[in-house]
Amino acid sequence: MLPRRPLAWPAWLLRGAPGAAGSWGRPVGPLARRGCCSAPGIPEVPLTRERYPVRRLPFSTVSKQDLAAFERIVPGGVITDPEALQAPNVDWLRTLRGCSKVLLRPRTSEEVSHILRHCHERNLAVNPQGGNTGMVGGSVPVFDEIILSTARMNRVLSFHSVSGILVCQAGCVLEELSRYVEERDFIMPLDLGAKGSCHIGGNVATNAGGLRFLRYGSLHGTVLGLEVVLADGTVLDCLTSLRKDNTGYDLKQLFIGSEGTLGIITAVSILCPPKPRAVNVAFLGCPGFAEVLQTFSTCKGMLGEILSAFEFMDAVCMQLVGRHLHLASPVQESPFYVLIETSGSNAGHDAEKLGRFLEHVLGSGLVTDGTMATDQRKVKMLWALRERITEALSRDGYVYKYDLSLPVERLYDIVTDLRARLGPHAKHVVGYGHLGDGNLHLNVTAEAFSPSLLAALEPHVYEWTAGQQGSVSAEHGVGFRKRDVLGYSKPPGALQLMQQLKALLDPKGILNPYKTLPSQA
Amino acid sequence: MLPRRPLAWPAWLLRGAPGAAGSWGRPVGPLARRGCCSAPGIPEVPLTRERYPVRRLPFSTVSKQDLAAFERIVPGGVITDPEALQAPNVDWLRTLRGCSKVLLRPRTSEEVSHILRHCHERNLAVNPQGGNTGMVGGSVPVFDEIILSTARMNRVLSFHSVSGILVCQAGCVLEELSRYVEERDFIMPLDLGAKGSCHIGGNVATNAGGLRFLRYGSLHGTVLGLEVVLADGTVLDCLTSLRKDNTGYDLKQLFIGSEGTLGIITAVSILCPPKPRAVNVAFLGCPGFAEVLQTFSTCKGMLGEILSAFEFMDAVCMQLVGRHLHLASPVQESPFYVLIETSGSNAGHDAEKLGRFLEHVLGSGLVTDGTMATDQRKVKMLWALRERITEALSRDGYVYKYDLSLPVERLYDIVTDLRARLGPHAKHVVGYGHLGDGNLHLNVTAEAFSPSLLAALEPHVYEWTAGQQGSVSAEHGVGFRKRDVLGYSKPPGALQLMQQLKALLDPKGILNPYKTLPSQA
Repeated sequence: MLPRRPLAWPAWLLRGAPGAAGSWGRPVGPLARRGCCSAPGIPEVPLTRERYPVRRLPFSTVSKQDLAAFERIVPGGVITDPEALQAPNVDWLRTLRGCSKVLLRPRTSEEVSHILRHCHERNLAVNPQGGNTGMVGGSVPVFDEIILSTARMNRVLSFHSVSGILVCQAGCVLEELSRYVEERDFIMPLDLGAKGSCHIGGNVATNAGGLRFLRYGSLHGTVLGLEVVLADGTVLDCLTSLRKDNTGYDLKQLFIGSEGTLGIITAVSILCPPKPRAVNVAFLGCPGFAEVLQTFSTCKGMLGEILSAFEFMDAVCMQLVGRHLHLASPVQESPFYVLIETSGSNAGHDAEKLGRFLEHVLGSGLVTDGTMATDQRKVKMLWALRERITEALSRDGYVYKYDLSLPVERLYDIVTDLRARLGPHAKHVVGYGHLGDGNLHLNVTAEAFSPSLLAALEPHVYEWTAGQQGSVSAEHGVGFRKRDVLGYSKPPGALQLMQQLKALLDPKGILNPYKTLPSQA
Repeated sequence: MLPRRPLAWPAWLLRGAPGAAGSWGRPVGPLARRGCCSAPGIPEVPLTRERYPVRRLPFSTVSKQDLAAFERIVPGGVITDPEALQAPNVDWLRTLRGCSKVLLRPRTSEEVSHILRHCHERNLAVNPQGGNTGMVGGSVPVFDEIILSTARMNRVLSFHSVSGILVCQAGCVLEELSRYVEERDFIMPLDLGAKGSCHIGGNVATNAGGLRFLRYGSLHGTVLGLEVVLADGTVLDCLTSLRKDNTGYDLKQLFIGSEGTLGIITAVSILCPPKPRAVNVAFLGCPGFAEVLQTFSTCKGMLGEILSAFEFMDAVCMQLVGRHLHLASPVQESPFYVLIETSGSNAGHDAEKLGRFLEHVLGSGLVTDGTMATDQRKVKMLWALRERITEALSRDGYVYKYDLSLPVERLYDIVTDLRARLGPHAKHVVGYGHLGDGNLHLNVTAEAFSPSLLAALEPHVYEWTAGQQGSVSAEHGVGFRKRDVLGYSKPPGALQLMQQLKALLDPKGILNPYKTLPSQA
């Protein structure tokens, strides 16, 4: 079966990506970055509709009567000021821009329900938006879709101190939830670089993976319940707080990872693991990728149940976080670096396990240099090296981003392959990511967008991935950017069933149009 | 780094576990039981269609031409011998009986596809059957549905020795898969009493919970891919072996827990955790349910990441496994018993954690007596006490079974409530189950089925559960028995969407009819 071929990108696809100073600490959130983007000297992001071959579907346009109706539904929560609409129209990577003229800020699921009922009746398209930190353009309008922001739906609804089950509104910021549950001796089952801005509803809608996936698994397992407003305004209440519930089809699963195209998630019930008493991070240098893989196998065996992350990055990533963010490597220069985190209930036991492991990998030459942290400040510093690679890349120039699932043994081959293939046409080709999950972030930077570079990358990268039975989107999702490459990882029968589900749940197609599903089908 | 502490086991831990000769060990599988059921003196199970108010839907009946077509599709795999059809027409609990006249035994998904294409064209109803170990009558025909057995689809397709990802056909028996992956230093992420008979396809189709749920979570998280044959014979290939894959809607989730009503699972890709190097089981007596709960909290804190099971049973359960299965209690008589299992990578560390925990709970009076096992034989003996309760109950008389999810604090109240409510009308009212998951198995036995006892139980138990926002089916599913009580745990909007999904995927309703969805809707 031949995969569907991607769109041939036209020449007018563009450049873009800012720059600024930075240091250790949190990644600069999208809102902060966006703030700086209106500063003079930073080029405006081209309109998506002008840059991509996409045609507006025959939705209605927002009228004065619509605005009046919205004002009745969410008094004070209707934003039409063009200045205030600039940021939410542009994606985090600053390569997509919609031209929405209305942003709505409901506080409750009832308000979301009334909004959608109105939009459904009036055939108005809606773009749900959480923290707007997505990598694939799923959270910004393509044309003039109404932006429905979850920002004011930010209340914790309940927390059970024995089971660790948190129920909250969709607009809660992940980092704030982390703080909330950590004060109660639990942690969130997911963590990602964008935590300071991303919303839990967006995390669930995009089935976010992130840094704790290796230990706590997928949101399909940790999310216990959802409240979702369907396209016609119906509130679907599956917001249970039960570990187990086999009463019929597990409907919430449909919405996890559907990117707001089947319904808008308004509340989430999620299982939080107990806060580990001891967290250790080791940052190690490896002489080659074979040694990275062997370190991983050794680590799984020797650290067992306390292993909570196994991340890797190559030497070029380290150079870029050094150059653009002024973060210095804590270990000797190496071809590869791995970050290993352990989380456990007994500091002494964990230290002993980690100590033996480090002795072994250093003794056997799998690792040539390393450092370790147990205090929170140094732990954060080591994590920053890995978490801020995305930011460093975005300061390096135009970034071609790929987020692939591959068999671990072949994970780095595509990076080597691309370096040879692209030669001096690329500025940098880097590989990093969640090795423990078989998830490679493959990024190519260039001074500016170039159609010929793109043609050298695509469909090659997708074909290579399909040849390994890999996934062309491991965790970033599909959004607007990847919707025409789904066929590399999913057979036609699956794509057809996805279209049928969309037609069933959103027959008018008003929810996040131009996203997730292939454009032609 | 703390030095390793010498083990300081209390004296009673060194006591050997008692046991009547030959009676410990594996639960007797349903096939063995069924074999004995044709023995003289055991009454025949009444036909479901005569016992329950259910009407046959207007499906076709199997003709000679159909049989000839089936014989062409699965040569030698068409069973019509009435003797051979007796067992697969009766459920494990022996209270439901269909009158199917054909059982098909395909070996491949292509054969399943051809069978379903034929049945779809001819409007013939199909009842998929794995190990036939379900508790809710999902796996046996209600009328004359064709039984499609997965028994011959029992091949392992691949196993990846680094990632632990197993891909196999749906008819593999769970225990055989366990053996297969354990030889390769992994374990299956689920385990249940029926492991000797149940098929992995049935486990996934019913979203089985079981004994490892506390540690390894739901199948919605551990199943990575599925191959499913849809009602019209289309083969839906979502059989990826990737930890992460966000390319579109996660279609496989639809089929996990849908009990064969949306499609027939023909192959499964599942993530197996590494085999723990050390397994310890402690079997403890508690003076009251409050102490059971406190033991659980303490245990979560002190055992942390090595805790792999926390099960409980009441004194009546212990009496019944003693009376019917001749298993003797390994500890002093107590109102409640808990079974705690740890699984870890370092025997010394685990023993130390468990030792400190036991010292604490014994010292504080939460636990009054206990025994411990590390060697496999004794571990199995202790587990048998918990795993074989179902079997003991089935030998106690007619069993009214409830499988509830409840807030842990209220978990046992319904047992106490029912004992008072039923008085001498019930033979025994027992509570046991997966306390760590908030899952109570509430069982009531009587000499024989009695409508008045049923009326005292239902809807009372369901209303009580709904009053606690609980689930009326935590892990057993819906099947035929529970389809009309879904409304206690799911709102009308959810039930409607379930019906819509059924209509989309199986418009003729030929897949496992009379199951899962409410009968009236």
